[in-house]
Amino acid sequence: MEIAQNFMGKLARNTMTRINENGNVVGTIIVNCEGFPETTTLDSLTAATYSTHMRNLSHHASNALKEIDVTDELVVLRLVSRKSEAVVAPDHEFTLIVVMRRS
Amino acid sequence: MEIAQNFMGKLARNTMTRINENGNVVGTIIVNCEGFPETTTLDSLTAATYSTHMRNLSHHASNALKEIDVTDELVVLRLVSRKSEAVVAPDHEFTLIVVMRRS
Repeated sequence: MEIAQNFMGKLARNTMTRINENGNVVGTIIVNCEGFPETTTLDSLTAATYSTHMRNLSHHASNALKEIDVTDELVVLRLVSRKSEAVVAPDHEFTLIVVMRRS
Repeated sequence: MEIAQNFMGKLARNTMTRINENGNVVGTIIVNCEGFPETTTLDSLTAATYSTHMRNLSHHASNALKEIDVTDELVVLRLVSRKSEAVVAPDHEFTLIVVMRRS
């Protein structure tokens, strides 16, 4: 599972490698601020589907948190489903999505 | 933090007590299928705000999962923010929301 890493710094590259080496991780997606997957270890259709839905969802979550406390900010969103687990970590420039097997 | 437990079975009562005894738990809310908080250890305004937003969010999450895999189903949604953590466990009749301190 090689990923296009040319735009990433060493620290980010190491982090992505570490995450992808975890046996429960199915794949990772880095989504840019326009909502397109920049880098992924998944196939492009799966990456695009996850990118769209998880980014929308993290916006909704962020807005919901701001309605509860305007000074609060979303750090991580984790969805556990019957079949898999998805972790979304939104940031200003990129959103990281990690898709995992249920452990 | 007493909660109105008269409609709950013994097992559910024990579970709610166990959750509320955890030092990191700020409060719990049980939301009915109409979206109203049935039982809570939080004040009613906070409970109502969380109920509305977290229930909406779990619907969005559930729909997103179904778009990715129609046979999949949401089990737990966890939001980690700078100030707190919220866990949402949706079910057919009730949705359980647990609000926690960041540990």
